[in-house]
Amino acid sequence: MAKKLGRSTVRLEKCPAILSSAAVGSKKEGEGPLARYFDHIAADAYFGEESWERAEGRLQQLALQGALSKGGFAPEEIDFLFAGDLLNQCVGSSYGLRDFGIPFLGLYGACSTMAESLIMASLFVECGLAKRAAAVTSSHFCSAERQFRFPLEYGGQRPPTSQWTATASGCAIVGEGKGIAVRHLTAGIIRDLGITDANNMGAAMAPAAASTLTAFFGDTNTHPADYDLILTGDLGQVGRDLLFELLEKENIRISDRHNDCGLMLYDREKQDVHAGGSGCGCSASVLCGAILRQMEENKYQDVLFMATGALMSTTMVQQGESIPGVAHLVHLSVKQPGKEERSC
Amino acid sequence: MAKKLGRSTVRLEKCPAILSSAAVGSKKEGEGPLARYFDHIAADAYFGEESWERAEGRLQQLALQGALSKGGFAPEEIDFLFAGDLLNQCVGSSYGLRDFGIPFLGLYGACSTMAESLIMASLFVECGLAKRAAAVTSSHFCSAERQFRFPLEYGGQRPPTSQWTATASGCAIVGEGKGIAVRHLTAGIIRDLGITDANNMGAAMAPAAASTLTAFFGDTNTHPADYDLILTGDLGQVGRDLLFELLEKENIRISDRHNDCGLMLYDREKQDVHAGGSGCGCSASVLCGAILRQMEENKYQDVLFMATGALMSTTMVQQGESIPGVAHLVHLSVKQPGKEERSC
Repeated sequence: MAKKLGRSTVRLEKCPAILSSAAVGSKKEGEGPLARYFDHIAADAYFGEESWERAEGRLQQLALQGALSKGGFAPEEIDFLFAGDLLNQCVGSSYGLRDFGIPFLGLYGACSTMAESLIMASLFVECGLAKRAAAVTSSHFCSAERQFRFPLEYGGQRPPTSQWTATASGCAIVGEGKGIAVRHLTAGIIRDLGITDANNMGAAMAPAAASTLTAFFGDTNTHPADYDLILTGDLGQVGRDLLFELLEKENIRISDRHNDCGLMLYDREKQDVHAGGSGCGCSASVLCGAILRQMEENKYQDVLFMATGALMSTTMVQQGESIPGVAHLVHLSVKQPGKEERSC
Repeated sequence: MAKKLGRSTVRLEKCPAILSSAAVGSKKEGEGPLARYFDHIAADAYFGEESWERAEGRLQQLALQGALSKGGFAPEEIDFLFAGDLLNQCVGSSYGLRDFGIPFLGLYGACSTMAESLIMASLFVECGLAKRAAAVTSSHFCSAERQFRFPLEYGGQRPPTSQWTATASGCAIVGEGKGIAVRHLTAGIIRDLGITDANNMGAAMAPAAASTLTAFFGDTNTHPADYDLILTGDLGQVGRDLLFELLEKENIRISDRHNDCGLMLYDREKQDVHAGGSGCGCSASVLCGAILRQMEENKYQDVLFMATGALMSTTMVQQGESIPGVAHLVHLSVKQPGKEERSC
């Protein structure tokens, strides 16, 4: 049975595994360095739909369908669906996934949602509540821009700290069986150090990332060197530098094994994304595409996947409020642990 | 250990209990028939804050503080916080609860969120992941009206099918120990029968309510007569009538033991709320105030609490989309079951 370590980490004893996964993206993601890891790249931002919001629902549909089909599962074989996105009232998930007939538990963790949904899916499997559970999330550049910032037609200029919301989705199906094992989870605590600039999400999320990572190392009594890759969600360039600075104060150095999904998804030299990619779909598609494939190829054995979310809305920012952040962490491993270590 | 029954019901074997709870409301809720069950009634809609959105955060704060203080718990004694609300990006929860320092897992189930958060909190306790977990949600008439409908100053006329968003919050702390036992849970499947009228949420949610209730009775092999009260979240008058009609087709009759939080919170003769109350805070405050107190007084022994949510956004409705609904159910009981029955 799962064992609680410290304030917010859980060690999984049955080690639920990621049985299958899929990543979906659009044109810009298809031009980036991780293009070959995507299961589906659409030619434009509409995905055959009439609006960007419907397109975002379609992204989630395609990701779930992709993961189902790669695993050889019917929707009836999935016990619970954990999903969420950035759109107001999370309509990317509810409209995109409404026809699958799977018990639906909606989540909201902003860009941390892929880690949050993986946490839930893994725990449900670990505790015998689900034989299989799916974790899905998405973001869409156009639906996010017009909701959070300006109408696209306005052509607002983006400051250097701003990030590019990925038009992408990722889905992972967790269950009992063979696959990348989910071995630890850490649920984040909200942190708010007073950042009020809605064009600088990396800075707003870095304190939460530092807090969760510090908690995880403490709770598990492990060190950065125990992991091949420490992967943050979408801190981008600005947030990454701040994370390193904050961790330095705790005497934790991760720079030789750290990467950030927002810095991986696009070619920042050629693709004009400023501080990097962002959005729930950024970390979801990088994890469910490139990273899980690379783990299967044994490029990485132990990965810490920590997605970060800025829990703001335009209304709160307009009212002068600062931006709270949260970061959830999942420890993934290709290793088959010894019996003495745990009961996997 | 928890046992899965059918597609989406879980029977809890350790029977986590609601250790303490609190309900918070505003002026209108204080003038309604359930006023005496509220722990805190504010004199106006601002709760001492400068905006309605901040006031909604304050509502959640007061509800959590109330439940903590009634149970004699410090925030450090709560392992996980499950919360969500109707505001864009669920900022009622993230801003309201950011200072408690409790690992935070955000949820979005629209007005079903109180049942969804209770499901999560109960399962985490059942599975030994948490000694105690809190479930919190809220809604606010003014923040909801201006976000979903019209600026209040516009004075838009409300049609008879429309419901009144409660300015209220409820919090329940679930844990091992003495209290109202959580014995079964059913996670809902999204249902969408094509309702497009954003002023008729009851009709949009009734199919999901019928679906979850039918599933629950089938999965547990029980009947309406086995429960003293079947309490829906906020279907209001229109949704309730439709629920009865849909259940009639399945030969399920609940009218002699059914009530709806939306029909209980206000005096519909005197308080001009049209089809009834609504909002996450409606079912949350009715459950965490009146119902749990009445169970403690033995007025009810077995209660099915089923909160319903309309998973729409203004954007999707403006694009002509129909409104998907979801309903999550929790079976609460004051009974101490026999050993032969389960291992509580």
